[in-house]
Amino acid sequence: MTKPCILCVAITGSVPTKADNPAVPITVSEQVESTHAAFEAGASICHAHVRDDDGRPSSDPDRFARLMEGVRAHCPGMIFQVSTGGRSGAGAARGGMLPLRPEMASLAVGSNNFPTRVYENPPDLVDWLAAEMIRHEITPEVEAFDLSHIHQAAAMHARGALYGRLYVQFVMGVKNAMPADRDVFDYYVKTMARLAPDAEWCAAGIGRHQIEVNEWAIAAGGHTRA
Amino acid sequence: MTKPCILCVAITGSVPTKADNPAVPITVSEQVESTHAAFEAGASICHAHVRDDDGRPSSDPDRFARLMEGVRAHCPGMIFQVSTGGRSGAGAARGGMLPLRPEMASLAVGSNNFPTRVYENPPDLVDWLAAEMIRHEITPEVEAFDLSHIHQAAAMHARGALYGRLYVQFVMGVKNAMPADRDVFDYYVKTMARLAPDAEWCAAGIGRHQIEVNEWAIAAGGHTRA
Ligand SMILES: [Zn+2]
Ligand SMILES: [Zn+2]
Ligand SMILES: [Zn+2]
Ligand SMILES: [Zn+2]
Repeated sequence: MTKPCILCVAITGSVPTKADNPAVPITVSEQVESTHAAFEAGASICHAHVRDDDGRPSSDPDRFARLMEGVRAHCPGMIFQVSTGGRSGAGAARGGMLPLRPEMASLAVGSNNFPTRVYENPPDLVDWLAAEMIRHEITPEVEAFDLSHIHQAAAMHARGALYGRLYVQFVMGVKNAMPADRDVFDYYVKTMARLAPDAEWCAAGIGRHQIEVNEWAIAAGGHTRA
Repeated sequence: MTKPCILCVAITGSVPTKADNPAVPITVSEQVESTHAAFEAGASICHAHVRDDDGRPSSDPDRFARLMEGVRAHCPGMIFQVSTGGRSGAGAARGGMLPLRPEMASLAVGSNNFPTRVYENPPDLVDWLAAEMIRHEITPEVEAFDLSHIHQAAAMHARGALYGRLYVQFVMGVKNAMPADRDVFDYYVKTMARLAPDAEWCAAGIGRHQIEVNEWAIAAGGHTRA
């Protein structure tokens, strides 16, 4: 069985700054321009973070609104996915843009370590974000930083706590979380097939692991993020 | 190849109280008595938590000292393992008893969700606890609540950051962390053999999963906690 490969583009992460790389798009118009180029090249999902005026990660709903409007105008049919990740805000602020009703939003369902800190996603915040997504009819992309997150996603989906079709992204290569390990990748794919055979999955390798993990994902029939 | 089965007894966890079960040993003398019974029955490791005068989890070094002294007097040759888990204290207080030089201490190497909160083990605290264990020649028992914790333990051991022989405990059946799943258990065993073939491992199923996980562990050649 073949399925269309969804290319997901994360135009601006929450970490890089103009100082690291002057080509990183920061302003909304830079982001729209860069998304449009990726759309023309075949990307079908835009995974979006926004920045404040000083270039710092933000979860300001107004910024998201302007970016979503720009992407919808320039990239007809492209899926707009907002980040509710913890680098851009704390607590309920992480979901402040969900009333904009983007097609998708990222959702962490567990906690794990990051290079220098704990990536905190307490159970009550996870449940609140998932409920907000149901309320606004937004399909979550579950960010799986570890194996138990896949189990948690499948269990939440089975009990109706996640809107839409289950979609999981394996995130590999973050220091102090799951390394980019081929055996683990294969086990993740096997676990998805066992626990949630109707779900879709994609995979993202961080930093120097990006191309390697993309290749694994394409070969195994998943989607990729570039 | 057969190896002796180490039975590890956790005489008092950090959660149950006398109100839940009047038989739970809380005072040091109750704990020594209960450890001695387990020792006579064949247990070779005593995994120890202590409580304060009100029965609340504590990491008071004086309590640990009295308990260790009692266990050493009554159970000659038994391995004394202190808990540095996060339910009994915060930050560096979690390692305040390490200068007592018990044979072993539990060590979390990553973070994960617990039933109602985040089990926080930030990277700098993990590194500090591991360094204290090297300083006091204490073998860690790594508590693996998720797959990446096994990878982290193997990487830390390989770079000399963990004292002694690598010893990992798989913890399964905690809500919002890894469920007691047979396929995952088998993959954990396979992962240990791949990443750290000379290491030892044991497994603990929480609550109603205790006997089931013990049976898996014994059949697969690991140690168990009762
Ligand atoms: Zn994706
Ligand atoms: Zn993101
Ligand atoms: Zn044990
Ligand atoms: Zn314990």
